Amino acid sequence: MLSDIEIAQSAEMKRITEIAADLGIDEQDIEPYGHYKAKMSEALYSKLADKEDGKLILVTAINPTPAGEGKTTISVGLSDALRRIGKKSVLALREPSLGPVFGMKGGAAGGGYAQVVPMEDINLHFTGDMHAITAANNLLCAMIDNHLQQGNELRIDQRRIMFKRCMDMNDRALRNILIGLGGRANGIPREDGFNITVASEVMAILCLASDVADLKERLGNILVAYNLSGEPVYAKDLGCTGAMTALLKDALKPNLVQTLENTPAFIHGGPFANIAHGCNSLRATKLALKLGDYVVTEAGFGSDLGAEKFLDIKCRIAGLAPACVVLVATIKALKYNGGVQKQDLAKENMWALEKGIENLRTHIENMHKFHVPVVVAINRFATDTDEEVKFVQNFCSDMGVEVSMCEVFAKGGEGGKDLAEKVCETIDLVSGTEFKPIYDTHMTIKDKVDKIAKEIYRAEGVTFTAQAEKAIKEIESIGFWDLPICVAKTQYSLSDNPNLLGKPKNFKITVRDARLSSGAGFVVIYTGDILTMPGLPKAPAALNIDCDKDGNISGLF
Amino acid sequence: MLSDIEIAQSAEMKRITEIAADLGIDEQDIEPYGHYKAKMSEALYSKLADKEDGKLILVTAINPTPAGEGKTTISVGLSDALRRIGKKSVLALREPSLGPVFGMKGGAAGGGYAQVVPMEDINLHFTGDMHAITAANNLLCAMIDNHLQQGNELRIDQRRIMFKRCMDMNDRALRNILIGLGGRANGIPREDGFNITVASEVMAILCLASDVADLKERLGNILVAYNLSGEPVYAKDLGCTGAMTALLKDALKPNLVQTLENTPAFIHGGPFANIAHGCNSLRATKLALKLGDYVVTEAGFGSDLGAEKFLDIKCRIAGLAPACVVLVATIKALKYNGGVQKQDLAKENMWALEKGIENLRTHIENMHKFHVPVVVAINRFATDTDEEVKFVQNFCSDMGVEVSMCEVFAKGGEGGKDLAEKVCETIDLVSGTEFKPIYDTHMTIKDKVDKIAKEIYRAEGVTFTAQAEKAIKEIESIGFWDLPICVAKTQYSLSDNPNLLGKPKNFKITVRDARLSSGAGFVVIYTGDILTMPGLPKAPAALNIDCDKDGNISGLF
Repeated sequence: MLSDIEIAQSAEMKRITEIAADLGIDEQDIEPYGHYKAKMSEALYSKLADKEDGKLILVTAINPTPAGEGKTTISVGLSDALRRIGKKSVLALREPSLGPVFGMKGGAAGGGYAQVVPMEDINLHFTGDMHAITAANNLLCAMIDNHLQQGNELRIDQRRIMFKRCMDMNDRALRNILIGLGGRANGIPREDGFNITVASEVMAILCLASDVADLKERLGNILVAYNLSGEPVYAKDLGCTGAMTALLKDALKPNLVQTLENTPAFIHGGPFANIAHGCNSLRATKLALKLGDYVVTEAGFGSDLGAEKFLDIKCRIAGLAPACVVLVATIKALKYNGGVQKQDLAKENMWALEKGIENLRTHIENMHKFHVPVVVAINRFATDTDEEVKFVQNFCSDMGVEVSMCEVFAKGGEGGKDLAEKVCETIDLVSGTEFKPIYDTHMTIKDKVDKIAKEIYRAEGVTFTAQAEKAIKEIESIGFWDLPICVAKTQYSLSDNPNLLGKPKNFKITVRDARLSSGAGFVVIYTGDILTMPGLPKAPAALNIDCDKDGNISGLF
Repeated sequence: MLSDIEIAQSAEMKRITEIAADLGIDEQDIEPYGHYKAKMSEALYSKLADKEDGKLILVTAINPTPAGEGKTTISVGLSDALRRIGKKSVLALREPSLGPVFGMKGGAAGGGYAQVVPMEDINLHFTGDMHAITAANNLLCAMIDNHLQQGNELRIDQRRIMFKRCMDMNDRALRNILIGLGGRANGIPREDGFNITVASEVMAILCLASDVADLKERLGNILVAYNLSGEPVYAKDLGCTGAMTALLKDALKPNLVQTLENTPAFIHGGPFANIAHGCNSLRATKLALKLGDYVVTEAGFGSDLGAEKFLDIKCRIAGLAPACVVLVATIKALKYNGGVQKQDLAKENMWALEKGIENLRTHIENMHKFHVPVVVAINRFATDTDEEVKFVQNFCSDMGVEVSMCEVFAKGGEGGKDLAEKVCETIDLVSGTEFKPIYDTHMTIKDKVDKIAKEIYRAEGVTFTAQAEKAIKEIESIGFWDLPICVAKTQYSLSDNPNLLGKPKNFKITVRDARLSSGAGFVVIYTGDILTMPGLPKAPAALNIDCDKDGNISGLF
């Protein structure tokens, strides 16, 4: 079989003006970036305001193996398959970060015959959104340090500056740094560090802002530091939110591309799925819903992290309600959750499958707690045995949910038609969605965390460390208790311990710290160490990437 | 009078496809970025290979006041004026950096009625070239530190890593930093620092590369460090030049925009004018020469820095020869060079003008040493008195060069018609250019520096510090003596002392250090402290920049 980039490079792309025209968008309302990418104009929103929304389909997953379950691939394949069965579908996904592209994970544009294209552009600079976010973030940082240097009128406590610089690169040497060295002309020495850009609060803000005015207000509300009296200092106090907004005004416009099968795809925004909410921009989703009858979107990691945040944060803020959740699993991952070692996953193991499928059961139950219907999508591998497949089918049947064996990686939309039909049937069966979030934001921060831990993670309770107690108290004391919760937790387990696979029992969640994202509008709850700046592996993917004399790129995956 | 941004926002821009069509470029050969910017395809170069080149006009200046002389404004106005007198002109300029836009200097897209547009886009992210350069630079840095972390097979001496990280921001606190702190998982602690992106060698390389293959080779040749045996370590040794090239392949394509009067303008590349060569990309200039009969381009700072490097570095590497040099001066700056204080420049002062005009004389003589004809352009101010103007006219007449009083800031192309006519006449008079560089690259590094110092700066000689002697010896010892010289020197004086205005006498130049830019292909000679990361002033321009709810930007200048 060809590699992902070989398949992508042989795609027959349509001009982006054609893809837009297919959605009824006039050429005047798009801003082309080359011939196969475009940003959507602001004017389009008001033109479409009165149109009815399509149905929103959320693709999420069980707790993954380190290789992942192929959520993006299934999302792309499902959107293509919906077109094949005659439905007007639109895709809405996150945009990739350069860090993983050059590191270990590679790109994030689907795989095999279920990809979005132009794959190289999407995985590299795309339309510059990441760079705009980096610039806006770092302008604020330069303004903070310049404020210290120029007399520190706001009395910022240099030991309590929480807002860090960022870079779209996996660069561990920038995690902990000392800046401002070299004498009085060169700044005030202090501890600092870089996050990867997707972990910047500016990214989370861009993805939750409803328009330019809302973006500016949220940027101004970023808590950057405390002053020497212990009072909060916000970005707006530094006077650069207008300039930050100017840097972000184009990045706020959703990007349109296409799948290998020419299905329209919005790829816009990509916040971290642990310290942020992990799904594409609210604006892209809303626009897609105006333009398509079925909108396929995806949330990061397993449903305990990605879908929970999608539903409790994004849907709550945006007033969205998904018509159906597609829960992606692989038989390999189910066996992995049953305790099988990575190197043995290709072998049939009914005992492990039976044990590991409890993970799937919990995710299905969890989604039902939000009152949304579920369809299970098994991303099919050649090593899956008939008996294993049958077992999963029976399990789903017993739980009263549809299950589909998907071959979109190998066959594109054709391999997802069964899934597409089951999703449509499920949506048609449930007349009117009853979606409701898991918790009420009016509860205390600790009560909200407790609720998520018990309902979703199935923990017996939550232990808050002294540090966490103090942090939460401080956040509530400056008036921000009434916000949704964004839990930073390992994706490998329902619990906060990455080694507890399947369905862990008799455990408590330990909350170590809390941090306010007052611009984005949520409280981040830390359960364990979360790296916000990845490192490169011994042999980074960058070693294999090349560009020939004609500008053709190879080695991206 | 309206502000620059108000004038720019009221411009009647043509679609970029129209501007391209005017140059005979097919829609297939451009990659649009929105409706008013486009990158030129690689294919265009081979299509135009057989076309004859137009005439190249270099705009440079005398030693400036801190406010500058308006070289960009004159360049834009001259290209518009050439169109008004029936000539097919094309403009080729540098692209602005975000750092100064948010700092003190503001944007760099001309001024008044002589601007390139869309002004906001050009001054902010434009087509993402700066960001691509930042990413390529920082990928190499991440690879260096990852190499140290993963066992340091190349035995890189962490005390001798010369290649720094970069950011397109004025951020003094990043000049001197300690990275890799926090224990073994977080890198090897070492000293580092950030340059502003335009000071990155990657920027210089992008601006001197003839094509993708040449770009890749130059990137590979960047000297990043010495190993523990004192041997050089190049970027290619780290295995990421393919990935860096992939990041830069689009940035290498020239950007087309237009002036307020719809004259085609290539805005591409913007290297520092002290530690690099300070002019737009070689590829943009070459393309402009294929497309226009007259190409107006600009080099940074005064002719002692900008034009000298344009002629000795860029023209030499590219095989270009300017048909005419336009030397920009203001009567204010001539008086400033004659010793008048900034606050008194609006008053007539014939004594100071007479003294300061010696600076203009030296620049004219210097350009003649390169065997290129000169036309003087006086950027006219309302405060210039008739007697002052007459004096300058007589002076130029005595020197046998044409002089023109320009009012392009207030009147656009109309205010530059006289200049355009004089430039064309001058070019017509000189049949065939006799251009030759000031020095031969086969000379030793010290001899080349000596030649520039004596011929151009009019120094009595050069003093090399012990540090400089050592650095030059090391550069020659690893085989790089046969390169052009790039002097980093104050722009305010012909000498290396910013306080010596006019035409300094009886001075020596002191060379403090030397650094090899083996990728770009020149040796940087340091005379004094050159900041490669600017800082923000007490009241940065960022404070005034805003973006309203409809995405309209204000406060850019």
